[in-house]
Amino acid sequence: MSLFRDSIDALSAYQPGEQPKAGERVIKLNTNENPYPPSPKAVRVLRELDPDALRRYPRPYADAAREAAARLYGVPTDRVLVGNGSDDLLTMVMRSTAEPGRKVAFATPTYVLYRTLARIQAAEVVEVAFDDDYRLPVEALAAAGAAVTLVATPNSPSGTRASNDDLRRLATAVPGLLVIDEAYTDFADDNALPLAQELPNVLVLRTLSKGYSLAGLRVGFGVARPDVIAGLAKVKDSYNVDAVASAVATAAIEDQDWKNANAERVKASRAKLTAGLEELAFRVWPSEANFLLVRPSDGKAGVLYEALKARGILVRYFNQPRLDDKVRITVGTDEQNAALLAVIRETAQERS
Amino acid sequence: MSLFRDSIDALSAYQPGEQPKAGERVIKLNTNENPYPPSPKAVRVLRELDPDALRRYPRPYADAAREAAARLYGVPTDRVLVGNGSDDLLTMVMRSTAEPGRKVAFATPTYVLYRTLARIQAAEVVEVAFDDDYRLPVEALAAAGAAVTLVATPNSPSGTRASNDDLRRLATAVPGLLVIDEAYTDFADDNALPLAQELPNVLVLRTLSKGYSLAGLRVGFGVARPDVIAGLAKVKDSYNVDAVASAVATAAIEDQDWKNANAERVKASRAKLTAGLEELAFRVWPSEANFLLVRPSDGKAGVLYEALKARGILVRYFNQPRLDDKVRITVGTDEQNAALLAVIRETAQERS
Repeated sequence: MSLFRDSIDALSAYQPGEQPKAGERVIKLNTNENPYPPSPKAVRVLRELDPDALRRYPRPYADAAREAAARLYGVPTDRVLVGNGSDDLLTMVMRSTAEPGRKVAFATPTYVLYRTLARIQAAEVVEVAFDDDYRLPVEALAAAGAAVTLVATPNSPSGTRASNDDLRRLATAVPGLLVIDEAYTDFADDNALPLAQELPNVLVLRTLSKGYSLAGLRVGFGVARPDVIAGLAKVKDSYNVDAVASAVATAAIEDQDWKNANAERVKASRAKLTAGLEELAFRVWPSEANFLLVRPSDGKAGVLYEALKARGILVRYFNQPRLDDKVRITVGTDEQNAALLAVIRETAQERS
Repeated sequence: MSLFRDSIDALSAYQPGEQPKAGERVIKLNTNENPYPPSPKAVRVLRELDPDALRRYPRPYADAAREAAARLYGVPTDRVLVGNGSDDLLTMVMRSTAEPGRKVAFATPTYVLYRTLARIQAAEVVEVAFDDDYRLPVEALAAAGAAVTLVATPNSPSGTRASNDDLRRLATAVPGLLVIDEAYTDFADDNALPLAQELPNVLVLRTLSKGYSLAGLRVGFGVARPDVIAGLAKVKDSYNVDAVASAVATAAIEDQDWKNANAERVKASRAKLTAGLEELAFRVWPSEANFLLVRPSDGKAGVLYEALKARGILVRYFNQPRLDDKVRITVGTDEQNAALLAVIRETAQERS
């Protein structure tokens, strides 16, 4: 007997993304972190936290953060679930909805975790290819008839957003849950939160990792009807969000001005970076996220990735069909983006 | 189609333990928290944390905490896995080893999460009853032939510890993984950590929630051979331990003097509380944990629980067969324990 289930033995180990060593000076545009610091009000919570909050078990539903999120989203508290990052909420979704005989569907390329989590559950995975413009393939996804259908919007790595009309049509057509993963929504022009109120089978996911500059804290939120929240909570670890994270998250959510100001800066930088890359003959997909999917005119994305890395700039290269002629670039500060453009210009000759 | 799997629909929602409201003055002896504060060196880490650690993604394996634990346990780093509490590690165990056709076995009464997690996986659960002295039923557990066998030692709610001889016999006899859950080991006279080095199918679990007074932080550790660690890590959330928790945990582990001094105080208080309860004609099971399983001479444990609660003292009452004549009392400070004994004495008449 193997110690592990067959579906685990068949799974490759997770490959963590590239992380610079401590002290290494790099411009890190590969993992979609926010270039600006988190709210000083959130940091102050760390400085002032009562040590007794460490000693005692935390609230099972991270009440403070849950209530702050419910106020922000304008929904009752029982429509919100707090996760140890939105990855934790995706895990809850898969553990509670997916198994052999119940399908998991999504359009690709997208967040690779969907596939991994579905395989852990030994569920049948239905992958529908996006077209070159990354329009949501509503009919093909609906035809899968899956127990859980996932849409990242804005999508990674494309940065493109699905319309609420398309999402509403999809939600109405599928027999199971529709998960709308809005990790990057703080940089987008519209969002699907109203659908979580309007429709009984929609779960909208949010995170503090991007817009709030808190990737290190691991706090995400799910918004759905109370019966969906209750079903997910059955597979939640009893104390999935620690007391520190809940307190810091609460202060961060309550400082909307800070988050919004940084999001506006990122969006302005995104426009400038887009123009700069287009000037250098890159194709740039229209992004509502804090990153850009771009194709150099020669399609030699692997060479570009290596040339940038050699000069201390990390971007994301996906060595797989359909993406191996593109790179994904996180929008940095204007200074970082200018440095990137300069290096692209300087290395044009050696890369050709 | 239900939105959820059948095994989820069949599951009751988790009932969080009793938590006093903010500002309520109670003596809380119901959830086995440490009555003493965490290490000041760990608290200082919160005060001084670089906000950039919040902005960036954390290390996927919580390197700092992992390395500190490996040094403490005297094992190579690849034999340690860090969890978001040891509950997170138990979830990894079940997701990677249990499914229909693969059994989960444990002796009862024990930590109720084992049963819940096994049911989520739709695995067959084999429960073997402890005898009245809570000796580990090695032969009956071995006979189950389970894919994963779990032993909490010291066990909750009994406080009793299994011998390493019994655990070694069990590990050798089972075809799958033996999980030795040592959440309360910091208050015990011996531990099973050497077995994780000696045997290929043993996983020892540890937590900072009890001995280190960090229940609010959610950090636990698994120790096993590298191939076991690698299998578990396949189902780990990519960033399961946040940057703050990893940093605080590291400092806490490195302050062994603080933890040991508090554990000694708890053990001394445990001996005094045991003597005090025996004087009041309670049966007290021999405990190597920071709690006592006790039976009042009249067996009216529910009445005792209510009488204590009415006077602001919370203990744990399990309203279920075999436990409904007992309560579980967390060892508090000497002052808290004296207050408990006084209330038991004062209310003797009204309870009879």
